[in-house]
Amino acid sequence: MKIFAVQMDVVPGRPDLNFKTIQKYIVEAKAQKADLAVFPEMCIPGYLISDLWEETTFVSECLSINDKVTALADGIDILFGSVARENVNGENGRPLLYNAAYYASQGNLQPLVQFEDHVKYFLPKTLLPCYREFDEPRYFSDLRALAMKWGTTLENILKPYRLRGGIQLGITICEDGWDANAYAHPFDILGLQMGPRDLFINISCSPYTLGKTKARNRVFSHHAKQHRIPLLYLNSVGTQNNGKNIYAFEGDSCVYGSEGDTLFSFPTFEPYAATLTVDDSVHCPIPSFEKLTGMAEVRAALVYMIRENLKRWGIRRVVIGASGGIDSAVSAVLYSDALGAENVFLVNMPTRFNSDTTKNAARDLADNLGCPYMVAPITDVIESLRLSLAKDSFVRNDTKMIVEGIHYENVQARMRSGAFLATIASVVGGAFTCNGNKSEIFVGYCTLYGDTSGVLCALGDLWKVQVYELAREINKQGEIIPQKSIDIPASAELSEAQNVDEGKGDPIIYPYHDKLFSYWLERWNRNGLSDSIHALKTGTLCSDIDFSESRFREIFPDDSLAVLDMELWWKRYQGIALAKRIQMPPILSVSRRAFGFDYRESQMGR
Amino acid sequence: MKIFAVQMDVVPGRPDLNFKTIQKYIVEAKAQKADLAVFPEMCIPGYLISDLWEETTFVSECLSINDKVTALADGIDILFGSVARENVNGENGRPLLYNAAYYASQGNLQPLVQFEDHVKYFLPKTLLPCYREFDEPRYFSDLRALAMKWGTTLENILKPYRLRGGIQLGITICEDGWDANAYAHPFDILGLQMGPRDLFINISCSPYTLGKTKARNRVFSHHAKQHRIPLLYLNSVGTQNNGKNIYAFEGDSCVYGSEGDTLFSFPTFEPYAATLTVDDSVHCPIPSFEKLTGMAEVRAALVYMIRENLKRWGIRRVVIGASGGIDSAVSAVLYSDALGAENVFLVNMPTRFNSDTTKNAARDLADNLGCPYMVAPITDVIESLRLSLAKDSFVRNDTKMIVEGIHYENVQARMRSGAFLATIASVVGGAFTCNGNKSEIFVGYCTLYGDTSGVLCALGDLWKVQVYELAREINKQGEIIPQKSIDIPASAELSEAQNVDEGKGDPIIYPYHDKLFSYWLERWNRNGLSDSIHALKTGTLCSDIDFSESRFREIFPDDSLAVLDMELWWKRYQGIALAKRIQMPPILSVSRRAFGFDYRESQMGR
Repeated sequence: MKIFAVQMDVVPGRPDLNFKTIQKYIVEAKAQKADLAVFPEMCIPGYLISDLWEETTFVSECLSINDKVTALADGIDILFGSVARENVNGENGRPLLYNAAYYASQGNLQPLVQFEDHVKYFLPKTLLPCYREFDEPRYFSDLRALAMKWGTTLENILKPYRLRGGIQLGITICEDGWDANAYAHPFDILGLQMGPRDLFINISCSPYTLGKTKARNRVFSHHAKQHRIPLLYLNSVGTQNNGKNIYAFEGDSCVYGSEGDTLFSFPTFEPYAATLTVDDSVHCPIPSFEKLTGMAEVRAALVYMIRENLKRWGIRRVVIGASGGIDSAVSAVLYSDALGAENVFLVNMPTRFNSDTTKNAARDLADNLGCPYMVAPITDVIESLRLSLAKDSFVRNDTKMIVEGIHYENVQARMRSGAFLATIASVVGGAFTCNGNKSEIFVGYCTLYGDTSGVLCALGDLWKVQVYELAREINKQGEIIPQKSIDIPASAELSEAQNVDEGKGDPIIYPYHDKLFSYWLERWNRNGLSDSIHALKTGTLCSDIDFSESRFREIFPDDSLAVLDMELWWKRYQGIALAKRIQMPPILSVSRRAFGFDYRESQMGR
Repeated sequence: MKIFAVQMDVVPGRPDLNFKTIQKYIVEAKAQKADLAVFPEMCIPGYLISDLWEETTFVSECLSINDKVTALADGIDILFGSVARENVNGENGRPLLYNAAYYASQGNLQPLVQFEDHVKYFLPKTLLPCYREFDEPRYFSDLRALAMKWGTTLENILKPYRLRGGIQLGITICEDGWDANAYAHPFDILGLQMGPRDLFINISCSPYTLGKTKARNRVFSHHAKQHRIPLLYLNSVGTQNNGKNIYAFEGDSCVYGSEGDTLFSFPTFEPYAATLTVDDSVHCPIPSFEKLTGMAEVRAALVYMIRENLKRWGIRRVVIGASGGIDSAVSAVLYSDALGAENVFLVNMPTRFNSDTTKNAARDLADNLGCPYMVAPITDVIESLRLSLAKDSFVRNDTKMIVEGIHYENVQARMRSGAFLATIASVVGGAFTCNGNKSEIFVGYCTLYGDTSGVLCALGDLWKVQVYELAREINKQGEIIPQKSIDIPASAELSEAQNVDEGKGDPIIYPYHDKLFSYWLERWNRNGLSDSIHALKTGTLCSDIDFSESRFREIFPDDSLAVLDMELWWKRYQGIALAKRIQMPPILSVSRRAFGFDYRESQMGR
């Protein structure tokens, strides 16, 4: 039999557009004489659509598109993922919804779940993720709940779907395969009912994270090998978001053979469709796609998200404050990749605290990339503000409006973003960017309405050490990012105390703090301040965070200094930094713990 | 028997502080010779603590505080709510947690759930809310899952707790009482096993919303009346948040008699404790607390949240941009209520577009309240920016940096917030406020890094018509808010086209748009653009949104104009306005659908 597998670009919230895409692929599938076309999870509504699931008319629209897709199943069968709705309310008082798979044949949906006199013409997902950015139980019921409602067990209703030719399809949806911690195991239930000439199909809408490919290969090749049944893993591409976090869906669909080996895989970050032939094994005439790894893969994910999101929002140009430092340089490269260098406007905004080193680095970066470039000194405007305020005074309070010291430092950052970049972006017809990284965002080493501002935060899910790695990855093709941007200490250059030519800069010690912060943020059972202090006192900290013991001792000659340092950063992380994060732009998310809606925080001032 | 009921001020994330509070109350309870002290749901960890539940050491700390509270149960019994943990993992791969009730007696926790050879020394919550700001299934398992694990039913393990004296307590936790849409009904299960001399106790940690008191009285008085059993509803006070939304917990604990009548109730928005005597009925020697309603209640909630949050964050002073308009005036009153007028710095920042009318209104407001007041003209600084940019130009692009029209409008707003207010706040040692209302936020009629900025958004969950109502409520005590701020049209005064003296102002038509926007946002089964167009075409729109048909016809002589208007605002609501909301400060939440983490949105540009 021939299966036309579609790694589809799913547009969230736009069933109308997704239908057009499906329609186009069905024409192609028929031309290729496929018996079955397979589309990803939630390919009609989209997946990360937040509370849009509560809009009754939207769900109705999706259901009517389900019907239209079903009508296309004429001379070809269609397996697709979409929303299902029942005529009863869920416990939230709204109509009961499922994240479901549908099988259409000869213009009709086929029964996929049956028990006694009950029947459903769709298959609900069994496992609903409810962690990180996933909130499925907020919106959907599942197959286990359906079994319970029918007074039976999951094992009695989760069955492979038998095709006319006799082949059985073991259909699962995304999380159903990621069952390591789950109490139920859909692949095992199905596998016991299937044979070596059958086929597992997992339809997914699964966002990219660094390191996921490896984990995914491990998980799904295990299912195939365990049951000696080949497995088609079909993921979508595109970009979806939940407001605070933007995700790329990498596609990278593939087929695992019955030995758990990867037979072939689709490309990454682009739509693709191919015809697979299933007989004693699964065959596919597709070329071998070169896969990126590590920082090259991260770069591709970031550029993909920038390009697709700005296109969706109608933004063709961006303005970037180019300080001569590493973050804005890496940002400039990513946006140039996405929009073309001619649409990336670099602006260097010096005061007397900015060194020739960084000013030259900013200019060199622009020249290397071919971006429009401008130097816009900001001192006159700040002076105008300082003088203007010096003339003002309050009635009923005698505080003098003297702008100096820390007040003067922060006003520089806010003038750059709110006054200059926003206005320049407005005039050139575009948006400006936020170039903050995860380390700065972690401790709030940034100014609200200053460098925290922008339309997108491209590097917000990368630790500073990863930004350096990405810079080195970029420069593999030749020096695009000026070497001096990489070599100088990271610095905000907001005062004499941050003079890069004297080797002065940020108070964050890289990579030690990155590793400590990751230990606090990114472990599945998360660590707190007391855990790090305990680890220090019991001598396991350096090995726990994978940091050199000797370098640690150079930084902190004794433990009490290390504790003080931890307490200082912890307090910022939980306090002022969180207040800033709440008001930050969407973060392009690539880790397994991104600030925003993945990692959810309350302001408690702990 | 005597029950000491504690409407406790729960500090989220601070089991150490909550323990001190409990300790103090136990001393008082013993002095009053109470048999039992009752504390609210999650009174040790706090409730809205986001992903802090994942921090293993934090949960361990809570469990050790549970033990310390248990140890206090010496000569008195203690019923309290806290987290429980099992030595197995949940489906998220982390230790299984419950939102639980504990009963401590003679220094030991008592068994509250038993079946065959299973026993738990805590009672898990049965119903876990998973809508609006509630995410309990993300963190907790529940009593139904426990019953299933034990191979039995909820009915077999949910039992009243029998005291030594024979009285049975039917213990439930918060949502267990709000069971209208639920598939299980804890009060009914318990009620069937109880008699008229027994007592229901619902321990809650339930946030305030406008209209909730009425709904809560209906729901809980029904349970009491249905089973002819009195009911103690014990809620906490304090303020908790999830980052984007701040909530007040109103307390307002009360006892319903077996006829469903409210026997007495505790005060609102303040901690309180009282001894109840339970014999044939429930008695309490507390005075009758006057309850606020409507906008007076909203004012109290807002002031409570401002005061408690700013105190927690160490902010004693705020700076408010006083435009002479209604929003900043109402904000100034609320912050003055919370911090004292001497700590509320009002700054009027005129350009040539600001009328004497509004400038005088701002000054009069400051005089009426007794706030420090300053006029800080911003034109010189804007001119400095305009002239500075006019000198600049890009290499590789010939766009001229001419700041006029819409560019000039928005730079005014950003200068006010980012340059002036932020700097003034920094100098006086405080924060500045965001005064936006829900109508503006809905359609993004505000400038990012301008008037969307600030430490808190106090009016962000009130429609413009509600801001006017609140202003009138405030002025019941005499003219605090200048009448002209109420009488002039709402206007941003950013251009000649917004001249208030000529009756010009915002493009939003109040109250029609408020009602349309509410129809789109606040219905439980939410409406979309197509629903409103359909309602218009079928002639039900005005009745659906409760708006005058004749006034509607004055605004829109024909339907096509109304449709165009809907399409315009819908597009802004889903597009640019959402982009702004993502970067807005925390909103003080008082409705049943607040922007932020209550109503979750993806940027899809639908």
